[in-house]
Amino acid sequence: MQVYRYPSKDQWNEVVARPTFDNSQLRDLVSGILSQIKEGGDEVIKQLEEKFDHCQLTSLEVLPNEFEDAKAAIQPDLAAAIDRAYHNIAAFHESQHHTYNKVETQPGVHCWQKAIAIDKVGLYIPGGTAPLFSTVLMLAIPAKIAGCGEIVLCTPPNREGKVNPAILYAAWRSGVTKVYKCGGVQAIGAMAYGTESVPKVYKIFGPGNQFVQMAKQLVSLRDVAIDMPAGPSEVAVIADAESNPEFVASDFLSQAEHGADSQALLFTTSEQFADKFIGVMESQLEKLQRQELTRKSLEHSKIVICRDDEEMMEIVNEYAPEHLIIQTTNYLELADKVRNAGSVFLGPYSPESAGDYASGTNHTLPTNGYAKAYNGVNLDSYMRKVTFQEISREGLRDLGPVIETMATAEQLDAHRNAVTVRLANI
Amino acid sequence: MQVYRYPSKDQWNEVVARPTFDNSQLRDLVSGILSQIKEGGDEVIKQLEEKFDHCQLTSLEVLPNEFEDAKAAIQPDLAAAIDRAYHNIAAFHESQHHTYNKVETQPGVHCWQKAIAIDKVGLYIPGGTAPLFSTVLMLAIPAKIAGCGEIVLCTPPNREGKVNPAILYAAWRSGVTKVYKCGGVQAIGAMAYGTESVPKVYKIFGPGNQFVQMAKQLVSLRDVAIDMPAGPSEVAVIADAESNPEFVASDFLSQAEHGADSQALLFTTSEQFADKFIGVMESQLEKLQRQELTRKSLEHSKIVICRDDEEMMEIVNEYAPEHLIIQTTNYLELADKVRNAGSVFLGPYSPESAGDYASGTNHTLPTNGYAKAYNGVNLDSYMRKVTFQEISREGLRDLGPVIETMATAEQLDAHRNAVTVRLANI
Repeated sequence: MQVYRYPSKDQWNEVVARPTFDNSQLRDLVSGILSQIKEGGDEVIKQLEEKFDHCQLTSLEVLPNEFEDAKAAIQPDLAAAIDRAYHNIAAFHESQHHTYNKVETQPGVHCWQKAIAIDKVGLYIPGGTAPLFSTVLMLAIPAKIAGCGEIVLCTPPNREGKVNPAILYAAWRSGVTKVYKCGGVQAIGAMAYGTESVPKVYKIFGPGNQFVQMAKQLVSLRDVAIDMPAGPSEVAVIADAESNPEFVASDFLSQAEHGADSQALLFTTSEQFADKFIGVMESQLEKLQRQELTRKSLEHSKIVICRDDEEMMEIVNEYAPEHLIIQTTNYLELADKVRNAGSVFLGPYSPESAGDYASGTNHTLPTNGYAKAYNGVNLDSYMRKVTFQEISREGLRDLGPVIETMATAEQLDAHRNAVTVRLANI
Repeated sequence: MQVYRYPSKDQWNEVVARPTFDNSQLRDLVSGILSQIKEGGDEVIKQLEEKFDHCQLTSLEVLPNEFEDAKAAIQPDLAAAIDRAYHNIAAFHESQHHTYNKVETQPGVHCWQKAIAIDKVGLYIPGGTAPLFSTVLMLAIPAKIAGCGEIVLCTPPNREGKVNPAILYAAWRSGVTKVYKCGGVQAIGAMAYGTESVPKVYKIFGPGNQFVQMAKQLVSLRDVAIDMPAGPSEVAVIADAESNPEFVASDFLSQAEHGADSQALLFTTSEQFADKFIGVMESQLEKLQRQELTRKSLEHSKIVICRDDEEMMEIVNEYAPEHLIIQTTNYLELADKVRNAGSVFLGPYSPESAGDYASGTNHTLPTNGYAKAYNGVNLDSYMRKVTFQEISREGLRDLGPVIETMATAEQLDAHRNAVTVRLANI
C-alpha cells in the first residue's frame, strides 16, 4: 500500500491513477464469437455453453418448475433478507418517477417531455463461485418499476445445467420470468441479436469479466445500448481523527475483497488516524476468508494525507470514486462538496455493504473515473424522455418568421418552405 | 420512392430498414489520427487544420475581439431570430430541472439523489457550406443551464482561419466563451485528450461526418463519454385523408434535403391521400434549391399504407423515427400510442423545422432506430444523478442482519464484516 503525504499538485495524476487494464487484444476473439452467435443462434449458444460452462443443455429457458424448485430450496432467512432488500430498493427507485409539465415557451407553442420505458431490456448476471442475486435485484427492480415490457435475464448455469436458487428467487421476486441459461459472450450476443429462444433486446445491463465487457462494447457500437462502460470496483473513504478505525478498515477491506484489481483509497487530514488505521486493518485482514486475494488488491491501494478539507475534496473529485464513504465529524459539510462519485455513504453507520445489498440505492455504478460523466443505474436508465410539441395557428404565425430566417441562414431551403407553405395557409 | 400497400408482418423488416452505412473501414485511419493528436497536441492539430481545412492558424482559440467582430457582422434579423430561439430553448430546458426528495426506505435509512452538472463538456459543430449555428444553441444552452463549469466548443474555421459570425454569435448568446478553431477528428481528439490550448472534457456532444462519428466512437471506448451514436437523419410523417398534402410534402422534403442518406417515410391509412401527396411533393420539389440531393434521398424514402391506426402505430414504433410528425385529425390519440421516437410534432402547425430551430425542444436526437433505447439531448444529458445515503445507528441495527445474511450467501466475508464491526459497536 502506497502512502502519499501531502502530495503536490503534480503528483495528483499518480494519486488518482487506476490499475490499468487493457482488453483490446480480446477484440478479435470476442468479435468472432459474436459473429458465430449472430449466424448460428441457439445451436451455437448450446455448443459454447458446453465448452465454457461444461454443461449440456436441451432448453436454454428456465422452466416454471425450476422457479418452483428454487422457491422451495432457498433458505428462509435468505429469502426474507432478499424480500427486505426488494422492499427498500423498490421504494427508492419508485421515488425516481417524475412528473413532466407542458411548457408554453411562447404563446401557442407547447413543448413537453414524456418518460417512456424501454420496451425490451436484457440483464446479465455473471456466474462464478458465489451467486450474485443482489445484482438481479439491482437490475430487475427498476426495470419492472419503469414498466419495461420484456425483461430478459441471462446467467450461466452450473455443470448440471441448473441456475442457483437465490438467483431464481431474486428474479421471481423482482417479477422477471424470462431467465435463460447462458453466460459470458454468448449471453451478450444472444440478447443483442436474438436467437430462436432468447429475445433480442434494446439495452443490456450488468457486470461481467473482461470478455463480457468487450462483448458489451462491441454490440453497443451498432446493435444495442448498454448501461455504461466498466472497470474494476473501487472505494474512497474519507476519515478524520475522530473516525472509528475499525469501521474504516472494514470498509476498505470489503472493497479490496472484490478482486485483485479492486482499489481502495483512504483520504484523511489526520496522520495519526492513518497510522492507527494501518494497524487495525492488518488485524482485521488476518481473520478474513479471501485474505490472499485481498492482499493482492491492497498492493495498489493508497493512503492519501491531505493538507485540509478543501484540497482533500478537490483530489477526491479528481479521482471520481465509484463508492465514496465519508466518516468525518463534518460529513454533511463534505457531502456538499462532492461533484464526482457514483454513490456516497455518509456517517459512521452507512457502510458500502448497505448500498451493495439492501438500503435502497443501486449498486451498478460508474468505475474507473467514469463518474465524471456517468451516473449509476437508476430508474431513468430504463426510460427515454421523448419530447412532444404542439403549435397552434397563432403560435406558428408568430414563430414562423423566426424559423424562416434561421433556415435561410443555414441554407436549408426546404426547412424554410415547411413554414412558408403553412404561413400561406394561416 | 417505394410504396408499400398494406405490408404483411413479414415485410415489416424491409419497411423499417435504414439505408445501411458502415464506417468500420475508417477505424484504423481515424485511430491513427487520434494517436497523433494524443502525442503531438496543438502542433499536430495545426498541421491537420492546414491539411483538411486549408488554413494556417497561429492560435487555435477564438479571441475576444473575434466575438466582438461577429456581433458587429451578424445581420440584425438573424441576431433577433437567434435571440428568440435562445429564449424558447432556454425556457424548455430550464423546465427540466427536477427536485429530488430524501426517501426513508425503512426507519433510519435515508437515500436520495442529487443532480450534479458534468464539470467539463465539449461541443462539436461541423463546418460545411452553411454554418450550423442552431446546433450551437441546442448543445450550449442546456450545458449552461445544467451548470457545467467548463464548456468548450470546437468548429472548423474557413480558409482565412475565421469562424462564421452566426456561430460565434450563437456561442456568445449561449454563454460559451471557449471556442477553438478545430474541426473533424482533430476536434474530437483535442477535447478527448486535451492539448496545450484545448481543455480535456468529460463528455463530447455534437453531430459530424463519418470521420467525426468514428472518432467519437473510438474515444468513447475509454476516454470520454459521448451524447449518443449517430446515423443519417430521418422523419416519419403520419397523415390521413383530412391532412393537408402541401404541409406533409413540405415536411417530407425538409427531411430529404439534409443529405443523400436521409430518409423520409409517410405512414397513412388513406390510399387517396398517398396519391395526392405524390403529386404535390413533385411540384414542391421542382422549386427547391437542393433538388438534386433531395431526389437522391427520396430514392430510399417510402410510403407505407396501413390497414388501421393500430397497425400503423405498431409499425411506426418498430421504425422508431428520429422525428415523428402526426398530422391526422386524431393526432392526440395517436400521440398516446407513441413508444419509440426522438421528438414528436403534433397537428398541422408543428413542422419539424420548428423543433429544428426555435420552438424550444432539442434537435440532437437518436437516429437509425436508436430511439428504441436512447433519448435526445436534454438537461439530464449534462448532469449525473449521484446517490447519497445516511443510515442512523437504529437504522443499521435493524437493517444490518439483512446485509449480513446476503453478504454471507454471496461469500463476501469482508462485506459482512463491515456491518458486523458496526453492530458490535451499537
